[in-house]
Amino acid sequence: MMHGLTGTLGNVGEFGLIEALTARFTQHSDVQVGPGDDAAVMSVPGGQVVTSIDLLVQNRHFRLDWSSALDVGHKAAAESMSDINAMGGRATGLVVGLGAPAELDAAWALDLAQGIAEEADLVGASVLGGDLSRADAITISVTALGVCEHGVVRRVGAQPGDVVALAGRQGWAEAGFAVLGRGFRSPRVVVDAHRRPAPPYDAGPQAAQLGATAMIDVSDGLLQDIGHVAKASGVAIDVQQAAFEVAEPLQAVGAALGQEPMRFILTGGDDYCLVATFPAGTGLPSEWTVIGSVLEAGDGEEGAVTVDGEAYESPGGHQHFV
Amino acid sequence: MMHGLTGTLGNVGEFGLIEALTARFTQHSDVQVGPGDDAAVMSVPGGQVVTSIDLLVQNRHFRLDWSSALDVGHKAAAESMSDINAMGGRATGLVVGLGAPAELDAAWALDLAQGIAEEADLVGASVLGGDLSRADAITISVTALGVCEHGVVRRVGAQPGDVVALAGRQGWAEAGFAVLGRGFRSPRVVVDAHRRPAPPYDAGPQAAQLGATAMIDVSDGLLQDIGHVAKASGVAIDVQQAAFEVAEPLQAVGAALGQEPMRFILTGGDDYCLVATFPAGTGLPSEWTVIGSVLEAGDGEEGAVTVDGEAYESPGGHQHFV
Repeated sequence: MMHGLTGTLGNVGEFGLIEALTARFTQHSDVQVGPGDDAAVMSVPGGQVVTSIDLLVQNRHFRLDWSSALDVGHKAAAESMSDINAMGGRATGLVVGLGAPAELDAAWALDLAQGIAEEADLVGASVLGGDLSRADAITISVTALGVCEHGVVRRVGAQPGDVVALAGRQGWAEAGFAVLGRGFRSPRVVVDAHRRPAPPYDAGPQAAQLGATAMIDVSDGLLQDIGHVAKASGVAIDVQQAAFEVAEPLQAVGAALGQEPMRFILTGGDDYCLVATFPAGTGLPSEWTVIGSVLEAGDGEEGAVTVDGEAYESPGGHQHFV
Repeated sequence: MMHGLTGTLGNVGEFGLIEALTARFTQHSDVQVGPGDDAAVMSVPGGQVVTSIDLLVQNRHFRLDWSSALDVGHKAAAESMSDINAMGGRATGLVVGLGAPAELDAAWALDLAQGIAEEADLVGASVLGGDLSRADAITISVTALGVCEHGVVRRVGAQPGDVVALAGRQGWAEAGFAVLGRGFRSPRVVVDAHRRPAPPYDAGPQAAQLGATAMIDVSDGLLQDIGHVAKASGVAIDVQQAAFEVAEPLQAVGAALGQEPMRFILTGGDDYCLVATFPAGTGLPSEWTVIGSVLEAGDGEEGAVTVDGEAYESPGGHQHFV
C-alpha cells in the first residue's frame, strides 16, 4: 500500500503520524470542527447524542497473526457503531485512542486508520479526532457518537407476548474463532467473519421505526445477551432452535471440529447481529427472523432464557475478568 | 475506604465490578439513558456536541508509586474535560474505557472511579458509561462530551495585535514531576499539582464570552502549545518572561534542584491551564494574566514563538513516540 510514511512509530513521530492518519478520514457535513483542534465539534439533529465506548486490546480481542491492521480497524469501529445501532440509532462520529509500542510499523497504524475509515464510511460517520500514546500492547479505544432519529430503543421494554427477532448473521464469528484456534484458516467465510463483523447497520433504525420494544446487539453470546434484555425488562425469553437455518459453513466447521453447529449460534458473540423484541403482529421485513418469544417471568425468574422451553447446557458467553 | 467489594478484578468479575463502579456516578438531568444499556443518551442544548478523547497509560502518564487511584481518576477526567474547556465549552458527559490486569485490586478500580466522579462533579458532568477489558498495563481512556454555550473558540483565529493571556497555574506539575523524579515528595503543593491538575474550568466558557479569538489548553508544554495556536493562526507569538510571577514553591524547587524555575513555566505541561488570545483592549477579569502578544509572521515564520523577542533555548514539550 502507498502510505507516504515509512518506519516505526518512533521514527515517524507523533505529529507526522497524526497528519498521515487524519488524511484518511472523511469529514461529513455535520462536522463543524474536525481533527486538529483541542476537541471536535459536530451537530446532532434533535439536540440528543447517543454514545458508547469499546476497548480492543492486542491478544485479548485480536491477534496480529490472525487479523490484519485493516481487519482490526474495521472491527474496532464496528463494535462501537454496533452499540449505537442497538439503540436504534446511526453512528455519526468516532473518536479513537491508540496506544502502541514505538517499535510498531507506522504502516500498521495507517492500515488500522484505513480500516476504521472504511467501516465508518459504511454509515457515513466521521472520524472526529483521537489520541496517541506509547503502550506495550496495542490498545484501541473507539467512542461512537450518534443520533436516534426514530426514537431510542433500550434493553428494558420487552413485554410478555412480544416476539423476539434477529437481524444479521450469528454464529459465524464464533465458528471462525474455533477454526483459527485449531490452527486452520478455512472456511474462509467464517474466518473473515471473525476478523471483520458485518453488523446490520440498517436494521437498528429500522427496528426503532417498526416500534421495537427492546433491543441489544450480540457481542458476548446470543443467549447471554438475550438474558440482558430479559433481565432489564423483567421477563423470561424462550428461543426456538428450529427458527435458525444453520448455514452451510457452520455445518462444515461443526463437522470438521466435531462440534454441534447450533452451539456457535446460541453461545457465540462478536457477530454484532441485533436481537429485538416487537409486539406480536408487527410486520417484520425480511432482514428480521423471529427466533423466540417473550414470556411472563415467574417469581425470581426474571432474566431467564430457555431454549425450546428448557435450560441450555453450555458455557454461555464470557466475562472478561473471570 | 468502604467499597462493598473486596479482592482482585478477577475475583469480583465484570458484572459485579460494573455495578459497583456505576454506583459512584451521578447522572444529571440532561442524561436520558445512563450506564447499563448498549449506549448512553444525553441531551445537548443547541444540537451541537463537542468531544475529545485522552488515553492514560500506566508508567507513561502515571506511576502507581507516585499517584493514588483517586489521583489518577482525577487526572484522567481532567485531561479530557480540559480539552472541552479549551474550546470554550463545558463538559457534560464522560465515557470511560478501563483496561487492567485481572490481578488488580478491585479497590483500586473503585477509587479510580471515585476520582473520575469527583472531577466530573466539579463541572456537573455525568459519567455516562464505559467498557472494561483485561490488559497487562492499566490503560484508561476518557472521552469527554460537552457543549459550547457561548460559541466555539478554536486554535485558529489569533490576529496580529491580539494579547495573549493565561488562566490557571502553570509550571507546578512540571516542578512536581522534577521533584518526584529525584525521589523527593515535597514541596507537597507541586507534587500534588503533578498528581491532580486543577484546570480553570470557568475560564474556558468565560473566554468564549469575552470574545477570545483563539485558545488552547497547555498539556505538552507552554511554548509548544502556544506554537500550535501560532501555527494554526498563521502568526507569530512573543511571550514576556516578566509577565510571570514565579510562585514561591517553584522558586524553592528550582533552588533545591539547581534549575531555573522559569523553565518549569515555559516548557512544563500537565497543568491544563488555558492560553487564549483576545483583541487588544478586551477587559480581562482577574483569572487572566496577559503574558504576551500576537505578531505578524514573516515569510516562513508562521508558528514561531519567541520569549522576550528571542528564541528560547530549551527542550520544549515532548512527543510521545520520540
